[in-house]
Amino acid sequence: MAEQDAPSYPVDAMNRVKRRQERGFYDHAAVHAVLDAAAMCHVSYVIDGQPFCTPTLFWREGSRLYWHGSNASRMLRNLSEGEPTCLTVTHLDSLVLARCGFNHSADYRSVMAYGHARLVEDSAEKSRALFMMVDRFFPGRTAQLRETASQEINATTVVMMDIERASAKIRSKGVADDDEDYLLPIYAERLPVQLVMGSPEPCPRLHANVVRPANLAGYRAGRRLEDAVAEAHAAAYTD
Amino acid sequence: MAEQDAPSYPVDAMNRVKRRQERGFYDHAAVHAVLDAAAMCHVSYVIDGQPFCTPTLFWREGSRLYWHGSNASRMLRNLSEGEPTCLTVTHLDSLVLARCGFNHSADYRSVMAYGHARLVEDSAEKSRALFMMVDRFFPGRTAQLRETASQEINATTVVMMDIERASAKIRSKGVADDDEDYLLPIYAERLPVQLVMGSPEPCPRLHANVVRPANLAGYRAGRRLEDAVAEAHAAAYTD
Repeated sequence: MAEQDAPSYPVDAMNRVKRRQERGFYDHAAVHAVLDAAAMCHVSYVIDGQPFCTPTLFWREGSRLYWHGSNASRMLRNLSEGEPTCLTVTHLDSLVLARCGFNHSADYRSVMAYGHARLVEDSAEKSRALFMMVDRFFPGRTAQLRETASQEINATTVVMMDIERASAKIRSKGVADDDEDYLLPIYAERLPVQLVMGSPEPCPRLHANVVRPANLAGYRAGRRLEDAVAEAHAAAYTD
Repeated sequence: MAEQDAPSYPVDAMNRVKRRQERGFYDHAAVHAVLDAAAMCHVSYVIDGQPFCTPTLFWREGSRLYWHGSNASRMLRNLSEGEPTCLTVTHLDSLVLARCGFNHSADYRSVMAYGHARLVEDSAEKSRALFMMVDRFFPGRTAQLRETASQEINATTVVMMDIERASAKIRSKGVADDDEDYLLPIYAERLPVQLVMGSPEPCPRLHANVVRPANLAGYRAGRRLEDAVAEAHAAAYTD
């Protein structure tokens, strides 16, 4: 597919990357890759002119994003009316120590996705979303669990937002000093950082003879969490 | 100091933790510990009713938060007028796999800080902030760098926000299933995650004989980034 034909989110004043435009991407592939590698996002919404920025687990299905919380959540009560929302995902990849203060920076991949969030109220759609809330991260896991009770479904609020606009912003160049500064006897480095899994800690109250299921094998000590999360997304969805 | 006398942020409808109130903390010690262990935050602001959620590097000085960007930044142009702002920091500590879908969760530490962000315009205050922007993370580093040029100071916008309200929300209990579910032969675990530093990558264009300065020793492969960041904060500030 020619680059100009690749599926892309529309670009306008809301989502165009203004600072460092060379870091901005709008195609589905770039935007979705950042989203699908994350378990956690920050959701921003407005009540009476006051912004709130709430961390939460989320996932993507096509151009739709899902997240959840209890019925008591201030955020979700507000969003039930279809409030304008911005959902942001950020992966910090490094700290960059340059030869002057001005060029100190960080490598990162982020997405800002804009739309109007709404409650999932249809019961079949809500049951399916609660299933995917687990199986998108741990494919096959719901079938291994105690069945969800109807009062648990009622106590869970699921929110969805169709992505109307989105931009990915990526910096990956490490140290980038002014040309003349490379001649100076000053130390500079890229310090990589990764969100890494530790050793799984089995529940101390496990029933005898219960072992870790094979479908969790992607989640293992020393691996980047984002690799396991992206792999699980690819297993759960084919788009 | 008695607990009721410990310095604390005021609590009202804006920042009171509503869902899972036992996870909410408002004292300076709890709020600042979460903030000072982070390099990156998400800042939320509103333009014409539309929320924006932007990742950025930040730091704390007393009850004041600082962050920065270029003059071209949409966020900062808006915030120069003292717009209501929410700055959120989140450390994801684990994914929690329970015996039912409803109890799947995550361990985390987060802070939502509210106030009105304003540009730092006084030139002496701005110069000091640009100094701390580097030295808060890498104590002593500015003295090792090429001096900042006046056009670099002019091209950098520094924003500050006094924390008017704040709440920390912490979950750290791992697997927490319903009592009767512990009897079921279902696997459950806490999967810890950490933001870990890799091996520093010295700039390939380093001047001959330049070595890594001793004041970067806290930033080393295999260590949690948050430990180095919190340690640097303690070295840079005494509060």
